[in-house]
Amino acid sequence: MFRYAARSLSAKPCYVSPRVIEAEYAVRGLIPCRADEIKADLAAGRGSYSFKSLVYCNIGNPQSVGQMPLTFYRQVMALVDAPVLLEDAEIVARLPPDAVARARRYLTEIGRGTGAYTDSFGYPFARATVAAHINEHDHGVSPSVTADDICLTDGASMGAKLFLQLLVSGASDAVMIPVPQYPLYSAQIALLGGVKAPYYLRESEGWTMKLSDLVAAYDRCVAESGAKPRLFVCINPGNPTGSVLERSVMEDVVRFCHERDMLLLADEVYQENIYDARRQFVSFREVVLGMPAPYCSETMLVSLHSTSKGVIGECGRRGGYFCMTNLPAELRQQVLKLCSINLCANVNGQLMTALMCSPPREGEASYDMYRREWDQIFTGMKDRAELLARELGTVRGLSCQPVEGAMYAFPKIELPERYAQRNEELNAKEGRKLSLDARWALELLEVSGIVVVPGSGFGQEPGTLHFRITILPPLTQIERMVRSIREFQDRIYEQYA
Amino acid sequence: MFRYAARSLSAKPCYVSPRVIEAEYAVRGLIPCRADEIKADLAAGRGSYSFKSLVYCNIGNPQSVGQMPLTFYRQVMALVDAPVLLEDAEIVARLPPDAVARARRYLTEIGRGTGAYTDSFGYPFARATVAAHINEHDHGVSPSVTADDICLTDGASMGAKLFLQLLVSGASDAVMIPVPQYPLYSAQIALLGGVKAPYYLRESEGWTMKLSDLVAAYDRCVAESGAKPRLFVCINPGNPTGSVLERSVMEDVVRFCHERDMLLLADEVYQENIYDARRQFVSFREVVLGMPAPYCSETMLVSLHSTSKGVIGECGRRGGYFCMTNLPAELRQQVLKLCSINLCANVNGQLMTALMCSPPREGEASYDMYRREWDQIFTGMKDRAELLARELGTVRGLSCQPVEGAMYAFPKIELPERYAQRNEELNAKEGRKLSLDARWALELLEVSGIVVVPGSGFGQEPGTLHFRITILPPLTQIERMVRSIREFQDRIYEQYA
Repeated sequence: MFRYAARSLSAKPCYVSPRVIEAEYAVRGLIPCRADEIKADLAAGRGSYSFKSLVYCNIGNPQSVGQMPLTFYRQVMALVDAPVLLEDAEIVARLPPDAVARARRYLTEIGRGTGAYTDSFGYPFARATVAAHINEHDHGVSPSVTADDICLTDGASMGAKLFLQLLVSGASDAVMIPVPQYPLYSAQIALLGGVKAPYYLRESEGWTMKLSDLVAAYDRCVAESGAKPRLFVCINPGNPTGSVLERSVMEDVVRFCHERDMLLLADEVYQENIYDARRQFVSFREVVLGMPAPYCSETMLVSLHSTSKGVIGECGRRGGYFCMTNLPAELRQQVLKLCSINLCANVNGQLMTALMCSPPREGEASYDMYRREWDQIFTGMKDRAELLARELGTVRGLSCQPVEGAMYAFPKIELPERYAQRNEELNAKEGRKLSLDARWALELLEVSGIVVVPGSGFGQEPGTLHFRITILPPLTQIERMVRSIREFQDRIYEQYA
Repeated sequence: MFRYAARSLSAKPCYVSPRVIEAEYAVRGLIPCRADEIKADLAAGRGSYSFKSLVYCNIGNPQSVGQMPLTFYRQVMALVDAPVLLEDAEIVARLPPDAVARARRYLTEIGRGTGAYTDSFGYPFARATVAAHINEHDHGVSPSVTADDICLTDGASMGAKLFLQLLVSGASDAVMIPVPQYPLYSAQIALLGGVKAPYYLRESEGWTMKLSDLVAAYDRCVAESGAKPRLFVCINPGNPTGSVLERSVMEDVVRFCHERDMLLLADEVYQENIYDARRQFVSFREVVLGMPAPYCSETMLVSLHSTSKGVIGECGRRGGYFCMTNLPAELRQQVLKLCSINLCANVNGQLMTALMCSPPREGEASYDMYRREWDQIFTGMKDRAELLARELGTVRGLSCQPVEGAMYAFPKIELPERYAQRNEELNAKEGRKLSLDARWALELLEVSGIVVVPGSGFGQEPGTLHFRITILPPLTQIERMVRSIREFQDRIYEQYA
């Protein structure tokens, strides 16, 4: 993030697509921008703050807050990037034999090396690796995934954007999205000029969804906008909610989508991030294919995954894939065309995706180290998830559902009426329209250096307030964060209750 | 590329956005798809072809046809990917000291390593490197580029798509594009529901452009569609034309854009690929800033570059950048928002972009090897460019403008009237609508294994026929290709003239 110099301010009015102006993306919006200003102040010794550093809890970016990469994956990637290293026996001798063997195999598969565009859908061997991984994890369902069902993407975002583009051409096309949701979806719908058909998750019931709510949301959209919902977006495990769906609810969703000819877009990027022992991740593909006909054979499903989350946390690679189930051939042809316009996903992301789907196995040289690194990262996330939900729930005016999965808590904030009035007065004075939760997050940042995202950036039931906070910073920072939020809320209540 | 199994053909009609159906991308369209089928046949020993292998001349993908990567860049990238290698003194001792030093410096700049999302515009150090590179190459102009004017992207395509999205919201917004053009532009305009305002390049004058043509094209667009042209796309050196613009023509373009409030989108990805000694690349930034006010201070310019072309040829990295000149602050804010929705470009592409902009310097350990590799690649391209244009010009029914730059020849095809009639008859029989040049390219592929792209995929003056062919395959393949095309044309003339 950075601020622009004012030098290029033009006198002329400046045209921008109204769709672009409409799009919003809070995860990197007002609060993180202000945080970057403060960070620059702290580095330059400017300003007077009561803290020496910021705690960034606004974005699911694990390695930016200290998580280490998994060594094996990086070794293989380096060797594939620079095959010249493999020609040096002394270097090869100093690296684990399974990393060397893996790199050699990948290079054989790739052929000419990583400098070329790949097939539009990505390296065939990497797609086959992903397919095998899915077949191994989705138990007892058929037909099997093949490499042709897989497309490697620049992060999961590219897949989400592609399918929205495929089915939304303007105001006659709607997309059902959860509230709260990951704002990529609402932003992309705005950019396409489409209609949002929001369905609310039930906070008090662990952020689950109810079929009756879905039906009502669908009917409301059709009645109010005349638009036809084309896709149903489901994020499981939930972002920002941290909830994990039960199979029976997922079956309701499948029937609901099938009956209304909606493509089910399953955002499953947090599938490895399950912390609650009573929950387990079941993929929508497993659910769909486990249901009777016509659901198993006709429900159009696109499943998204990414190298950015899980335990691997390789955000910078922009790796990921989508998997297509029951997509008609004519739709697939259009998908292929869209991918071909993009040429291909970046090869390092493709390699990281293949690696994520084929970690070292027991008995291989790197297995013990991989296991140790994996366990340490996962245990840390699990501990912090539990701690966060528990501690935030004891803060005055906050309540927090369990963080069953994903990387976030999404606590509800209750604030004194006078704090809300004060926001109105400040907005009038400052000439801006900060929502109440944005004011709260901004003031939290100014007094404590904690960077969170206001709930309004994700959507929330009218009249409620929330914030999203990641479980990623090291434990000491999480503890400082909880302490700061507690003091901040106590002070608000002292002053304004 | 691959073919889809028919198993998922649905009985129900299938909705697809009409904008997606409208979009076309010939570079990976019919001909390359058929080529991949033939390739599979050859590998499996199926079919009877008169050749043993294909010559892929359809796409500017140098390392897929034998070009080697520049060693220094790959060494640095491998070390930055796997810093664990830098901890091993024995490995470090076996690598060039400047590669090691560069990797250490990049890692210091990056901070936590390559596993994290970067700033929305990319690593600040990499943007500063790009800025310094531009300032060094654009002579005698001010103000200097700063890191804040640079955004790192996934290839140049991402920048092109972003600015089209920024200024095109539907049928009221037009984009001036050259004919012929790189089909990313026409495809993206179709996806945005915008209007194409084509301006023709003058083939007989070396594919240059004339101001009077631009004015006429603008006026025609406004009169016929009512849409306002928001951007002017200029590809220099030209794709697919291989031509290099003269400064005086570029100044005409700048005045033309300024007077009509159009953003000038300068696709300069082939800036290093100049083969004609009488030509040199001048950037639009240098031209704009070298002109008197108000042109130098007000003309909105976005310049695109990529790691995929030039001599580096690192297509798989999807690296690139755009540079903004004279963009109003309110526009820049929207650009930043769009980038933030995309999170960031992939880090390996960012690193490769930084490396491309700061190669080894004289006196550094890797300089000699870098120079040798660079010269060999460049000389090869230059030789093949000259050979291709010269030889193709001697084929019956073909004429070819000089390949001054870029990576392609775009010869004009004349065909006997009866060959054209036969295409109509075949189309009627086959129930398809192959354009005449697509028929020609398809038959060339079937009889000779040469993969080219028909001119209709790029646009051409009505009544003319062309094909695009890359200069990239090794010399022996280029020679085989010319021979095949000569025989093919001779046979057509024998049979149908």
